[in-house]
Amino acid sequence: MSEMQTTRRGRPGYDQQGILDVAVAAFNEHGYDATSIGKLAERLGLSKSAIYHHFASKDDILDRALDAALSGLEAVVDDPLPLTDGGRAPDAVARLEHVLRGAVHVLVSQLPAVTLLLRVRGNTDVERRALTRRRAFDRRITALVGEAQAEGSLRSDIDAAVVARLTFGMINSIVEWYRPGGREGADRLADDVVAIALDGLRRR
Amino acid sequence: MSEMQTTRRGRPGYDQQGILDVAVAAFNEHGYDATSIGKLAERLGLSKSAIYHHFASKDDILDRALDAALSGLEAVVDDPLPLTDGGRAPDAVARLEHVLRGAVHVLVSQLPAVTLLLRVRGNTDVERRALTRRRAFDRRITALVGEAQAEGSLRSDIDAAVVARLTFGMINSIVEWYRPGGREGADRLADDVVAIALDGLRRR
Repeated sequence: MSEMQTTRRGRPGYDQQGILDVAVAAFNEHGYDATSIGKLAERLGLSKSAIYHHFASKDDILDRALDAALSGLEAVVDDPLPLTDGGRAPDAVARLEHVLRGAVHVLVSQLPAVTLLLRVRGNTDVERRALTRRRAFDRRITALVGEAQAEGSLRSDIDAAVVARLTFGMINSIVEWYRPGGREGADRLADDVVAIALDGLRRR
Repeated sequence: MSEMQTTRRGRPGYDQQGILDVAVAAFNEHGYDATSIGKLAERLGLSKSAIYHHFASKDDILDRALDAALSGLEAVVDDPLPLTDGGRAPDAVARLEHVLRGAVHVLVSQLPAVTLLLRVRGNTDVERRALTRRRAFDRRITALVGEAQAEGSLRSDIDAAVVARLTFGMINSIVEWYRPGGREGADRLADDVVAIALDGLRRR
């Protein structure tokens, strides 16, 4: 019995990232408030102190999960496109398309962490910091849409902030229904999002 | 003191719909599980039995709120478009546009109830029945998209179910950021959604 516990406590496969993955799944399934460190430890087959070896607190786990999702999305906007064949800087609509595709890829590859991020309501300092970063991200998207409107690539009869919200509403909805291994991969889904948002569904 | 309580209990303004509105706001704010009938009664300044006069249970309140949101959305798909000027039945793309506009109006006019509906995860019989109706609604949208693709009005290189999900993802996201009395009214927002989904953002 004592030996089994030792085995359980010492069982491999739960490094920091492994604990984070299980915690995020539990937060999404049962809610952050309803998931205690004790319940997490049970789910992992670890002692609480084994979790505290990797994370200072439950809030710290949430913080790192939200940071992973936000860093992924921010990296997409930070990622510069190469110069065009003609040696010019890519125009704003090309950068926007690049961002939309990149965001779909982040959602698909980090589905649980982004799901958690999208449910954050600002109840704690950690959540409020995450919301601040989300709003900064939204402002960068709005600015990029505004640039593309100003350069004449995008219709300018829709408010840039509304465009940013509706377009990312479409992208964020992927967490509601996308399941890895389904019919569409991330590349195909990114094509679909770009096709609808930029070119529309109507055949002409 | 006793008189104040009488006044509180008897205060006007809380018919069945009034109680429902306050309950939906509380469910959205604190979560359904965390909102007891006792807390609701406190928030309303009513006795619990005054609530039970109108509703059989907390589940019954949820049931009616979800029914209001679902009935509103279903009515949009049921609503027939008038014949065209030429006396023909409207084509599928016109019906789809009508549904997208109508759905935006339902979201804006019933923001709290639709917010509640979109958070339902199927934890109870009431929630599972609501999810079944949501899925039936989604299938009708997918079928309508398929019809519009078959008639040649919509591009058919995107799976109809994915079109339905992404388009309603965009519409449903409105509950995340729309605030009544903001810069855009429902008509304008419906125009924006139709413009992006059907015609795309790219200027040509």
